[in-house]
Amino acid sequence: MSDNQSPLNEFNHLNIVLIETSHPGNIGSAARAMKVMGLNQLHLVAPKTFPNAQATALASGAQDVLANATVSPDLDSAIADGRLILGTSARLRSLAWPQLDVREAAALARKEAQKGPVYVLFGRESSGLNNEELRRCHYLVHIPTADDYSSLNLSQAVQVFSYELRMALLQGHAPMVEPADYEPVGDDKMEGLFQHLEQALLELRFLDPSHPKRLMLRLRRLFLRARPDVNEYNILRGILSAIEKFAAKQ
Amino acid sequence: MSDNQSPLNEFNHLNIVLIETSHPGNIGSAARAMKVMGLNQLHLVAPKTFPNAQATALASGAQDVLANATVSPDLDSAIADGRLILGTSARLRSLAWPQLDVREAAALARKEAQKGPVYVLFGRESSGLNNEELRRCHYLVHIPTADDYSSLNLSQAVQVFSYELRMALLQGHAPMVEPADYEPVGDDKMEGLFQHLEQALLELRFLDPSHPKRLMLRLRRLFLRARPDVNEYNILRGILSAIEKFAAKQ
Repeated sequence: MSDNQSPLNEFNHLNIVLIETSHPGNIGSAARAMKVMGLNQLHLVAPKTFPNAQATALASGAQDVLANATVSPDLDSAIADGRLILGTSARLRSLAWPQLDVREAAALARKEAQKGPVYVLFGRESSGLNNEELRRCHYLVHIPTADDYSSLNLSQAVQVFSYELRMALLQGHAPMVEPADYEPVGDDKMEGLFQHLEQALLELRFLDPSHPKRLMLRLRRLFLRARPDVNEYNILRGILSAIEKFAAKQ
Repeated sequence: MSDNQSPLNEFNHLNIVLIETSHPGNIGSAARAMKVMGLNQLHLVAPKTFPNAQATALASGAQDVLANATVSPDLDSAIADGRLILGTSARLRSLAWPQLDVREAAALARKEAQKGPVYVLFGRESSGLNNEELRRCHYLVHIPTADDYSSLNLSQAVQVFSYELRMALLQGHAPMVEPADYEPVGDDKMEGLFQHLEQALLELRFLDPSHPKRLMLRLRRLFLRARPDVNEYNILRGILSAIEKFAAKQ
């Protein structure tokens, strides 16, 4: 289902909030990271420099997200109508707060976004969210990173979170594993193939007629694992027939 | 469990391959994106400019990943020992190839990484992976993005993929599906097999020398799906040699 067919348009209820961003380039990258995942509601709280050429440049094809971004002097006005507030945070503060990892948070955000606005807060590049901002949040969300190097930068954090939000919204769609046209042939054809294979390998003098079983068993395992479709089956039968034609001339 | 306590050290079997990267900054960002998720095996195939100050700058605290990156002139040498090859691709090519989304791919990569090297290929900023590179892959992997704006840039794609790999590795150990003795041969052997197969089919007059590609592509897909182990590989090579011996007598 394409994004604009979603009846509840949950995407419009997913809001990304960047608080006191220092580098305008990060604002542009965040806009791009959002748009590529179908998000478009960006809110800036007291950005250091905005608008700015760097933001525009790094937004690439997502300038519309920038153009529609709200700019507020404080957090209150940005999230006033928020039904669910999530704060991205690398670690616990002094008082333990309910925590989720980003995947669980996205699942929750999806559910809540069906009914009202969800705000995801991202803090300053250097120091993240402060305590006052953290306690506005229903949950603190961490993105699992390596123990020895956990410095996920702002635009990467927005990217991963936006991706997880998208994955959560897409749930219900069966994953495609095989190409749409792929249909393995049935057991009777496979048996025909194995008989043909054995015959051709005997005529090729590759298979020892007194001890054919072990090799044939290995080949059987291989081709069963391969699960040829009808085109591949026909190619294999064609190759075997060609072998037999050659061998017959000996 | 922290990364360096993992007894199987699957992280070391997860390799990121960047092919013909134009912008050195993207190499640095990719190194950073990897390290923050605990990955460290970076391979560059014919990068336009490397080493480079931009790469170093954007790698931030991940210069060790850069310093340990291998640089190869071509793909063959970079992935020769590959047990599983995944290619990131935005869309289908002319012949449908097995596809996964990034989450499924990460789950599969996790399983395979317990036994051998997994390579994830990323292509050029402008054009992605070419057809020759795509058909080296067991699966093509797409990262779900918005319908109307799907331009996930290279470092963001590496970030999201690395994140999913980490999430997969943090899960409990996946069950083993294959028999304990089953070990698919590496990419270099598969390439040898395909060359031998093409040769034998030409000598059999089965393959039309003026139009070999389409049939070989189908056979390639079949045998990549089959993932022969060394015994099966040897059997197949033996059959092909036997065919060539017969054909030579004509």
